[in-house]
Amino acid sequence: MENNFFLDLNRLDRLGFPEVVYGKNKDTQSLINISQKLLEAHGCAYITRLQDDKFAEIQSQFSHHLIEYDPASGACIIGKPRQIKSDCKVAVISAGTSDEYVVNEALYTLKFLGIEAETFQDVGVAGLHRILSILDTLQKFDILIVVAGFEGALPTVLGGLVSKPIIAVPAAIGYGVAEGGKSALESMLGSCANGIMVMNIDNGYGAAIAAFRILKAIDHKIQQITK
Amino acid sequence: MENNFFLDLNRLDRLGFPEVVYGKNKDTQSLINISQKLLEAHGCAYITRLQDDKFAEIQSQFSHHLIEYDPASGACIIGKPRQIKSDCKVAVISAGTSDEYVVNEALYTLKFLGIEAETFQDVGVAGLHRILSILDTLQKFDILIVVAGFEGALPTVLGGLVSKPIIAVPAAIGYGVAEGGKSALESMLGSCANGIMVMNIDNGYGAAIAAFRILKAIDHKIQQITK
Amino acid sequence: MENNFFLDLNRLDRLGFPEVVYGKNKDTQSLINISQKLLEAHGCAYITRLQDDKFAEIQSQFSHHLIEYDPASGACIIGKPRQIKSDCKVAVISAGTSDEYVVNEALYTLKFLGIEAETFQDVGVAGLHRILSILDTLQKFDILIVVAGFEGALPTVLGGLVSKPIIAVPAAIGYGVAEGGKSALESMLGSCANGIMVMNIDNGYGAAIAAFRILKAIDHKIQQITK
Amino acid sequence: MENNFFLDLNRLDRLGFPEVVYGKNKDTQSLINISQKLLEAHGCAYITRLQDDKFAEIQSQFSHHLIEYDPASGACIIGKPRQIKSDCKVAVISAGTSDEYVVNEALYTLKFLGIEAETFQDVGVAGLHRILSILDTLQKFDILIVVAGFEGALPTVLGGLVSKPIIAVPAAIGYGVAEGGKSALESMLGSCANGIMVMNIDNGYGAAIAAFRILKAIDHKIQQITK
Amino acid sequence: MENNFFLDLNRLDRLGFPEVVYGKNKDTQSLINISQKLLEAHGCAYITRLQDDKFAEIQSQFSHHLIEYDPASGACIIGKPRQIKSDCKVAVISAGTSDEYVVNEALYTLKFLGIEAETFQDVGVAGLHRILSILDTLQKFDILIVVAGFEGALPTVLGGLVSKPIIAVPAAIGYGVAEGGKSALESMLGSCANGIMVMNIDNGYGAAIAAFRILKAIDHKIQQITK
Amino acid sequence: MENNFFLDLNRLDRLGFPEVVYGKNKDTQSLINISQKLLEAHGCAYITRLQDDKFAEIQSQFSHHLIEYDPASGACIIGKPRQIKSDCKVAVISAGTSDEYVVNEALYTLKFLGIEAETFQDVGVAGLHRILSILDTLQKFDILIVVAGFEGALPTVLGGLVSKPIIAVPAAIGYGVAEGGKSALESMLGSCANGIMVMNIDNGYGAAIAAFRILKAIDHKIQQITK
Amino acid sequence: MENNFFLDLNRLDRLGFPEVVYGKNKDTQSLINISQKLLEAHGCAYITRLQDDKFAEIQSQFSHHLIEYDPASGACIIGKPRQIKSDCKVAVISAGTSDEYVVNEALYTLKFLGIEAETFQDVGVAGLHRILSILDTLQKFDILIVVAGFEGALPTVLGGLVSKPIIAVPAAIGYGVAEGGKSALESMLGSCANGIMVMNIDNGYGAAIAAFRILKAIDHKIQQITK
Amino acid sequence: MENNFFLDLNRLDRLGFPEVVYGKNKDTQSLINISQKLLEAHGCAYITRLQDDKFAEIQSQFSHHLIEYDPASGACIIGKPRQIKSDCKVAVISAGTSDEYVVNEALYTLKFLGIEAETFQDVGVAGLHRILSILDTLQKFDILIVVAGFEGALPTVLGGLVSKPIIAVPAAIGYGVAEGGKSALESMLGSCANGIMVMNIDNGYGAAIAAFRILKAIDHKIQQITK
Repeated sequence: MENNFFLDLNRLDRLGFPEVVYGKNKDTQSLINISQKLLEAHGCAYITRLQDDKFAEIQSQFSHHLIEYDPASGACIIGKPRQIKSDCKVAVISAGTSDEYVVNEALYTLKFLGIEAETFQDVGVAGLHRILSILDTLQKFDILIVVAGFEGALPTVLGGLVSKPIIAVPAAIGYGVAEGGKSALESMLGSCANGIMVMNIDNGYGAAIAAFRILKAIDHKIQQITK
Repeated sequence: MENNFFLDLNRLDRLGFPEVVYGKNKDTQSLINISQKLLEAHGCAYITRLQDDKFAEIQSQFSHHLIEYDPASGACIIGKPRQIKSDCKVAVISAGTSDEYVVNEALYTLKFLGIEAETFQDVGVAGLHRILSILDTLQKFDILIVVAGFEGALPTVLGGLVSKPIIAVPAAIGYGVAEGGKSALESMLGSCANGIMVMNIDNGYGAAIAAFRILKAIDHKIQQITK
Repeated sequence: MENNFFLDLNRLDRLGFPEVVYGKNKDTQSLINISQKLLEAHGCAYITRLQDDKFAEIQSQFSHHLIEYDPASGACIIGKPRQIKSDCKVAVISAGTSDEYVVNEALYTLKFLGIEAETFQDVGVAGLHRILSILDTLQKFDILIVVAGFEGALPTVLGGLVSKPIIAVPAAIGYGVAEGGKSALESMLGSCANGIMVMNIDNGYGAAIAAFRILKAIDHKIQQITK
Repeated sequence: MENNFFLDLNRLDRLGFPEVVYGKNKDTQSLINISQKLLEAHGCAYITRLQDDKFAEIQSQFSHHLIEYDPASGACIIGKPRQIKSDCKVAVISAGTSDEYVVNEALYTLKFLGIEAETFQDVGVAGLHRILSILDTLQKFDILIVVAGFEGALPTVLGGLVSKPIIAVPAAIGYGVAEGGKSALESMLGSCANGIMVMNIDNGYGAAIAAFRILKAIDHKIQQITK
Repeated sequence: MENNFFLDLNRLDRLGFPEVVYGKNKDTQSLINISQKLLEAHGCAYITRLQDDKFAEIQSQFSHHLIEYDPASGACIIGKPRQIKSDCKVAVISAGTSDEYVVNEALYTLKFLGIEAETFQDVGVAGLHRILSILDTLQKFDILIVVAGFEGALPTVLGGLVSKPIIAVPAAIGYGVAEGGKSALESMLGSCANGIMVMNIDNGYGAAIAAFRILKAIDHKIQQITK
Repeated sequence: MENNFFLDLNRLDRLGFPEVVYGKNKDTQSLINISQKLLEAHGCAYITRLQDDKFAEIQSQFSHHLIEYDPASGACIIGKPRQIKSDCKVAVISAGTSDEYVVNEALYTLKFLGIEAETFQDVGVAGLHRILSILDTLQKFDILIVVAGFEGALPTVLGGLVSKPIIAVPAAIGYGVAEGGKSALESMLGSCANGIMVMNIDNGYGAAIAAFRILKAIDHKIQQITK
Repeated sequence: MENNFFLDLNRLDRLGFPEVVYGKNKDTQSLINISQKLLEAHGCAYITRLQDDKFAEIQSQFSHHLIEYDPASGACIIGKPRQIKSDCKVAVISAGTSDEYVVNEALYTLKFLGIEAETFQDVGVAGLHRILSILDTLQKFDILIVVAGFEGALPTVLGGLVSKPIIAVPAAIGYGVAEGGKSALESMLGSCANGIMVMNIDNGYGAAIAAFRILKAIDHKIQQITK
Repeated sequence: MENNFFLDLNRLDRLGFPEVVYGKNKDTQSLINISQKLLEAHGCAYITRLQDDKFAEIQSQFSHHLIEYDPASGACIIGKPRQIKSDCKVAVISAGTSDEYVVNEALYTLKFLGIEAETFQDVGVAGLHRILSILDTLQKFDILIVVAGFEGALPTVLGGLVSKPIIAVPAAIGYGVAEGGKSALESMLGSCANGIMVMNIDNGYGAAIAAFRILKAIDHKIQQITK
């Protein structure tokens, strides 16, 4: 009975960002082994959805490295975040303060990738003046990541007001029919606003990578034009 | 093998509105029989969800009565609508013109009950200036019935702007995840706005009866106070 | 990386009731910060779905304020409840004693808003004589909030017997197909009774706000008539 | 490539009722072949869910036999119904006249089996006085089959009032969340009333066979006692 | 703020069995209060789904009464079980030993009602010889309660072999698509076998009451015939 | 605006069977173009789920080729079926004659692939003696494809009696909860019998290809052993 | 009874693209009225999901305008498409030729917006060499729209190979569990590939608008840099 | 009240593998009793989904036997694994290291049955070069068991590249729409690749038994040919 394991150390070359570790269902020893290999290959490792108790063990194991950990989202950066050169800026907007764990997963992923970001939290549509008051500010960003739970109406309202690319992320915040985030997800997918792009529930990580793909497309085009 | 049928001719006394006939799954002969009995008891009959072909037969059967029929909703009033005395007004608001069949079911039911109403259609949140432009007008109504399909965000946005009772009706308008109106329904039930009351999908009829119940409560209280 | 937070302190002016804090997914420090701001602005704060352990910390933080906490529903009133002047009365009716956590959420919200209410609990339709015995009493209330789990038939039966506005709240009480309250919710939405208005599962809070909106409409009309 | 077909001609001996043909998805030639074999074995054949166009062909094929066909349910009895001797009586009760296709499937199945039955239709709980007015009559039946669509509350209310065995059948009558009969089904399964037995949606046929099983148990016990 | 509670002490007269307490979501003090009232009215009380920790408190509270408690099902009989006179016997059959908690809920409910029962456990269809070996024995019972989880095929196979009334109970045993018992439930409802009557998932209690209703119908008919 | 189309003419080399055309959603001209290319490459083409009206056009277009068409399943073989040399035999077993369209899709696919097969239809578990009577015959086949609708119990029962590889195919035959075949699918996936392999609903085609893969594995091993 | 209609003629100014008409549920007269207003305001109108019979009427009504209509998708451009100046190119890639209706909706929308696009169809992962053979070509596009039905794996595979922004669109192509496109949707949302952005099922229109938003962000940044 | 238990000790004779114990929902005493009987009959017992705390008790009870336990899957072999003679080899392939608990359940079951197996883990399609690099190696195995969570695309990609029998097992790894493994399951069932056979979510055990059935069919055919 032979067991063979593979790891995608080539992703950085193919896609511009390295393999990332989904921490939720892996035991600590597996997490340490994989992180070690990623650190050796890339100088940094990034674990998402890392539980507090596993973090403690990982921290002591990699005590000689920089480690940053966000308990709300479980995001964990081991080693020095990556550095890219880009003029693009990303705004992360949320409907309520309960969405913060998703906001943070996006933020820490952007940080790991070396991208500048700013957050605008608790601007849900039940108090519409809040989002209206920051419209001009939002126009200065290149890409909007918009997080909402409950009925998930925020990306729809923003999509009718702002022409920027909007990456919508439903949050598993709510109860009854809204429990688990499916209502917010369907609200975003079925939006009467046009061209809203949607991620899986709670997938702040994916939203950040999607923003990275767009940002890379912008930077690549600028390089073509300006060289 | 004996078959016994019952009909609720007492509802008008109990609740203030007569029994209404759900037309969708009944054959024409049953519809004629039931309508005849309601006409005899109350001087009018109201059928909902009546298909065009059945209406033709019913029209010829009751040719000596006033008949009004709306093909979009299938609402059919036989005989003279009821008359009530009320100072209350109802606004029926919809997100898109595709929602008109639900708007009309509410309107014809209100008409059958003798209630004044006005519609504001195609004011969906993807073009937010539309709803903002009629806010002052809406404040003059006592009850708002709000219809929306797709992501169903309109009652949520209105609920944050207007303090009136809001009866939200999801419409089965949309495709993909929004097909059949469940997304809109869950969006309204799980709304981050407060105190939105929700009806079944496409239930313009029920929304009108709910408005009638509230209107009766208002009128009843006024009578208590002013007598 | 800049983080900006917004809070809807303007809601009281727009809608007549202040912003309320959804306690379930927020950490204690966030709850304290938000409550502090609401206390400063309005003289009171209201947290729903507050877990016992978080309440302990909040109680010690706001020890110099009046605090009322209901462990069944997690409702928590900090400061002095609001006061309104109204002749309207609300009845909160439930099918079984297991529904008490929803009944209480409605009750405490009504109390926070300054509205008088009375409860009639454990009057489910499996023992029909119970609801029949209180029909005359119920006629004296202006608005009925009706809570039920399992098959959720109580609002349907009441809707056929009483002409008052009925705000139905499904409770997540039951097992098998009834687990989580979806059966009760669909039962209420699809009711053969007419004009039943429905809230999200367990949303006693929303039912109270909906009642507040109707009560305000009644009081506003009376003011118009009687001035 | 060899095709072998089997048919359960032994069921009458094992269970006391013969194999029955589910007509919905079979082509007419298959229906004729199978009916022919059942006629030869048992002197009668029973097809359920037979569409009108197929019935025309079958009628001409078996023109030398007694044929009874109900277009509402698609029930079709070819040959002479079976005859049993029983003192038991079955009541078939329905909430609305739209449920008639299910009522009829139960009725024709009972007729095919040789059992006496009576119907009480349109006694839904939105007009509660109807069901209360026939309670004494219902006590004279041994078994109650109760059909309801929409929210399906009728068996729950009956279950709290009558001690007889109740076989509940949800009907696919309703729209929105109630479309297809799942809400009524879950309402019956999750009923707060006790000991309600439930059949599949629209399964009037199965309800009749279930009644037959109970009736046989009664008759068998009487034979044991009285011999 | 006045709270009124009702309790159905009249059920025993109406239906022949007393109100029973659903223990899962009630706090211990409520359980004690309700049980006390039932004990006073009927001499016994029956709680279902009672958790171990609540049982401890209840046991000490009612230490002067007979108490029987089954930890697998949470069934708890306080006081002396009821006594009825009946010649009928019920068999409770299960597919696997994991279904025992449902079997026991049915058994203890039958015991509380004073009915004799016998169990046949772990006779699932994956080892078909087991059920075939007890067919003759099963023919001696008047009513069969059949419990199964996973794909829930046992009632279907039994329904083709035995003519007795079959009350099928899906158990929430299984994983993946079978988790929670919905697959077993749908399997029983959609069975190709005829006349299988189905209860909610895990509802051993309801199955026993349903058996009681049938048993009462048998005994009542015998009394009519033999008097 | 340039449109580029690709077609998998290499599949025969990679997998041993050629690309097949899913006919349901393609217009006739596309079907003709693709079939033409497959005929040129392989000497035969196979279309599944071909509607009758499209078949008429295709037949006239390819009138100079052998064409075989099964209206029940929509299977259409253009050109000469493939020929393979194998000692393996496949049995296709079904619960009811309504399942014939799925049986036929499997049969025609096997025929197209050059594999011998035999069918055993209408042997559902509601008449268990039927399946028991052919057990010895079934032991002579190498692979069993088992089709069932409604509750889908047949593969479970067979899985406990026969040691052969069982490929289960749920059929979309049934109504209510069984409509669309999901209940049968879940029943097969969640089976208490061991090692049942399951295909998508109605996927007789896939079952035949799965049988082909197993048959190839057998033949390949025999070649290794016997060369 | 007054009816007020609103139309979002301001969208072009806010978002850079005009309001578009969802044709599926509107009657022809409404479509003509709305299109007339859009033509007057913008010189062009775009209707999606327009059925063939309605198109005939619309064509005769607007016979003096350029009209382009695609029957596969129902896309209809009235008047001269818009013109924008952009160096960006969009590739529309699909898994099978059955997906063409979604591909075309994206294509016609891009055409209406004045954007250049190229399609690569029938490159599904069941024949992986197809997608591998066009990887270099795809690198030359700025944005990829990827359409797939059935299990929807194509965006996942592409997402691991190409760094460009990927807008995934599930198509309602497939049967059984894949019917309606929900499986493909969930596959794209839950993808193990990183940063895939997802649209509603069949939403080729939305994918094109999303591409437009990204393209605008690119062009806007280039303008900032190069001015 | 008599309780009768049955156990399928005859399965080994019928099917070639003994009854196995599903450990998740049984109490420890039941597990010990059943294991004891299986040990006596077959010399070994196999428990799946055994929780850690129950294992401790079982280990001490059977301390005089060989015991092997895998905490990731809960697989527990008591006594000496079975021995069979076969030239066939099984490969167990997984998309990610989080899938290990399913891989292990398959591996330990194969070990218990006496079959040789090798694993290839973390070869998901987001890094396609991994699976392409082991294609030649996989061709040497007779049967492939393929485990994947999230979008479950791995069996589809493999199915287009390898002609071997593929037994796909969805893993309950993922979040949002992918939580619980249903997305992966539907992806595998609805695969555009041909002839993928699917097991229930997490059913590594069933996959191993399915492989055993195929392996037995191969060995049996070889015996027929070579004798």
